[in-house]
Amino acid sequence: MEYIALNLNEKLSQFSEHWSPKIFARMNDYHFKLAKIQGEFVWHSHVDTDEVFMVLGGSMAIEFRDGRVDLKAGEVFVVPKGVEHKPVAESECKIMLIEPSGTVNTGEAGGHLTAKDNVWI
Amino acid sequence: MEYIALNLNEKLSQFSEHWSPKIFARMNDYHFKLAKIQGEFVWHSHVDTDEVFMVLGGSMAIEFRDGRVDLKAGEVFVVPKGVEHKPVAESECKIMLIEPSGTVNTGEAGGHLTAKDNVWI
Repeated sequence: MEYIALNLNEKLSQFSEHWSPKIFARMNDYHFKLAKIQGEFVWHSHVDTDEVFMVLGGSMAIEFRDGRVDLKAGEVFVVPKGVEHKPVAESECKIMLIEPSGTVNTGEAGGHLTAKDNVWI
Repeated sequence: MEYIALNLNEKLSQFSEHWSPKIFARMNDYHFKLAKIQGEFVWHSHVDTDEVFMVLGGSMAIEFRDGRVDLKAGEVFVVPKGVEHKPVAESECKIMLIEPSGTVNTGEAGGHLTAKDNVWI
C-alpha cells in the first residue's frame, strides 16, 4: 500500500485567503487544520472544547480579557474551553489548529468571519 | 493573568533519552508529547485510537506490514487505529505525538521500550 506524508508547507501553498481554516488530517473525531491569518479576528469562545494553536511561520498573539500570549514559529498554546479569546497577527502568520470536527472558527460569536466547515485540502 | 507560550525547542532541550515521550500540553482528553527517537522501535498497534506523528527536526520513517512512509521536518502522518507500525530513524529525530491520555507508546506489544506514562515537561 502507498502511504503518503502530509507536507504542511505544500498544503499551505494551496490557498491564500485569511481566517479560513482548511482541514488536512483527521485523528479520531478531531480535525487538524491549516490557516493563514492577518489582522484581527473576533472575540469568541468555544464552550465545549479546548483549542490548540501551533505557529508554523511568522508570529501572532492571542488576546484574552485579562492578558495575552505572543506566539512565534515553533510555539504552541492551548486555549481552554469557554475562555474568550481574539487571535491577532500584524503580518501574515501560518498556523495549525487542532479541534473536534465540527468546531466553528468563530465559536458562539458568529458573524461574517465564520468559515465554511469541512473544507479539506 | 499571565499566559505562557509552549516553546517546542525549549521543551525538547529538557531531555535527551530516546523513545521516551514527554507530555507538554493537554487538549480535552488528549496529550501532546515530544520525543527524540533513534534506531528501531517495536512493531505495535493502538487498538482504540489513531496516532499523529509530526516531525519537528530530522527525518524518520514509519514502517507498515505492507509499506512505509518517510517523514521529514514539517510533515505529519496519522497512523489509523489498529494498524501495526514500527517507527524507525537512522539519525536522531525530534517528533511531536498526539494521542489520547493514557495511550501506551508500545501499544499492545509491551516490552522494555514501554515508557512511563504521564511524564510532563
